[in-house]
Amino acid sequence: MDWKLDSRHPIGLFDSGVGGFTVLKELKHILPNEQFIYFGDTRNLPYGDKSPEIIHNWATNSIKFLLRLKVKAIVVACNISSSVLTKEELTAIPVPVFTLIEYGAKRAVEVTRLKKVGVLATMATVQTRSYERVLSSLDNGIEVVQSACPKFVPMIESGKLATKEIEATVREYLTPITESGADAIIYGCSHYPLLSRVIEKYVNGAVLIDPAVEVAKAVKEKLSEIPALRTDPPHPDVFFVSKITENFLSTAKTFLGQDISGHTLEWIVNE
Amino acid sequence: MDWKLDSRHPIGLFDSGVGGFTVLKELKHILPNEQFIYFGDTRNLPYGDKSPEIIHNWATNSIKFLLRLKVKAIVVACNISSSVLTKEELTAIPVPVFTLIEYGAKRAVEVTRLKKVGVLATMATVQTRSYERVLSSLDNGIEVVQSACPKFVPMIESGKLATKEIEATVREYLTPITESGADAIIYGCSHYPLLSRVIEKYVNGAVLIDPAVEVAKAVKEKLSEIPALRTDPPHPDVFFVSKITENFLSTAKTFLGQDISGHTLEWIVNE
Repeated sequence: MDWKLDSRHPIGLFDSGVGGFTVLKELKHILPNEQFIYFGDTRNLPYGDKSPEIIHNWATNSIKFLLRLKVKAIVVACNISSSVLTKEELTAIPVPVFTLIEYGAKRAVEVTRLKKVGVLATMATVQTRSYERVLSSLDNGIEVVQSACPKFVPMIESGKLATKEIEATVREYLTPITESGADAIIYGCSHYPLLSRVIEKYVNGAVLIDPAVEVAKAVKEKLSEIPALRTDPPHPDVFFVSKITENFLSTAKTFLGQDISGHTLEWIVNE
Repeated sequence: MDWKLDSRHPIGLFDSGVGGFTVLKELKHILPNEQFIYFGDTRNLPYGDKSPEIIHNWATNSIKFLLRLKVKAIVVACNISSSVLTKEELTAIPVPVFTLIEYGAKRAVEVTRLKKVGVLATMATVQTRSYERVLSSLDNGIEVVQSACPKFVPMIESGKLATKEIEATVREYLTPITESGADAIIYGCSHYPLLSRVIEKYVNGAVLIDPAVEVAKAVKEKLSEIPALRTDPPHPDVFFVSKITENFLSTAKTFLGQDISGHTLEWIVNE
């Protein structure tokens, strides 16, 4: 396949569901002229309780799908998906690829004074120990406290963002991190910033780090450098989901402020 | 794969390039509430000089692509593609499928009084003798005069719709048909109605039949019957091309009256 990075080509991103919206929002904020293609594998969520082999297969399919749409860059807006891809696999992709883990970890290392970093993540991401690996490769004096939050994604994907149950669950998942004295906490799953209003209440003074903010800056920098930044008027984003759900459309409306129902297509990526 | 025909799902159609626009125009006229997904294999056109095996492969890929997007019906807006698909293959598709040949032939049989039908088509379609076969299955007393028009598609795809060269070519290709005394002439390639203004001048009183008009009626009838006609407000159409070309966008603007640049995505269907 011939590959030429063209500024008019879209930027692709994917996630298991609505989590990538938190990444898209940051990307759109910093790159207002770009067109984005979003893939949400809503048919298969949550990813957090699936095996690395299955997620590897899905992540590979999602990347192939975005490449077929000739994206000029890919943001893996799903931490688990980037956890299961090897560095070799990521490097082999013919367009620049950005993962949340890399940029979230970099920022945490800059921010922490006590050298204690907390990570909120799905069970699958916690098990791959990706954050621990990347953080210690950046600074091996850093202590990492991970907390698996298996209930968050199902709650967010069912549209529950502020209930008593959420409040209790947030408190429960944050406790091991705050008790450890971590002064920086990474959203280790792109879904979690959707719960930021509740999470912020229980961080006990720690700085919350959204890797999406860092990734968006990195994407802009890279596209400026190539150069492949879009300068003509933006085109509407296109959303693909493996199953159209009410929550996907309504979360886009409330969180992104966009009525995307006319720009959302079903795509069966993993039969 | 589970399949449920949902009225809110789009209708898919495909062609080698802009020819399918003539079909889309008729469909949109008669089905204003529907959303359409169009695939134009612009990277591989013209199809007319390719082998049946290659076209069969491409047509199969195009259908799979549209099915992945969960279309509720497929219009094969390319005569060659439907010529190379067997009846068994068409029947195996889990949604209703419509071909131009079937409906163009039916209409020709209704229209001809002299039982002489002319067919303007690409070399590949002429060679498959599909029109002859379908026409004689409907009425074996009908004489069919085919004329292969290999220059039409390249002319149309290069944006030339009214030059002296077109005029001469149209005259040349129409001569064997008008000399035979045919009183009905089928546009046996969806591209050709784009040359209707020139072609009309050389038909010598014969009735020109655009199969797209008949297909559009059939699609409406079938969707009403299921029922799967869309009743909520329409969503914008989405165009996929294997290569974005200036002619694709400009023909959409002049012929469909739509600026589709914001709704056109590149999709590499046949690597």
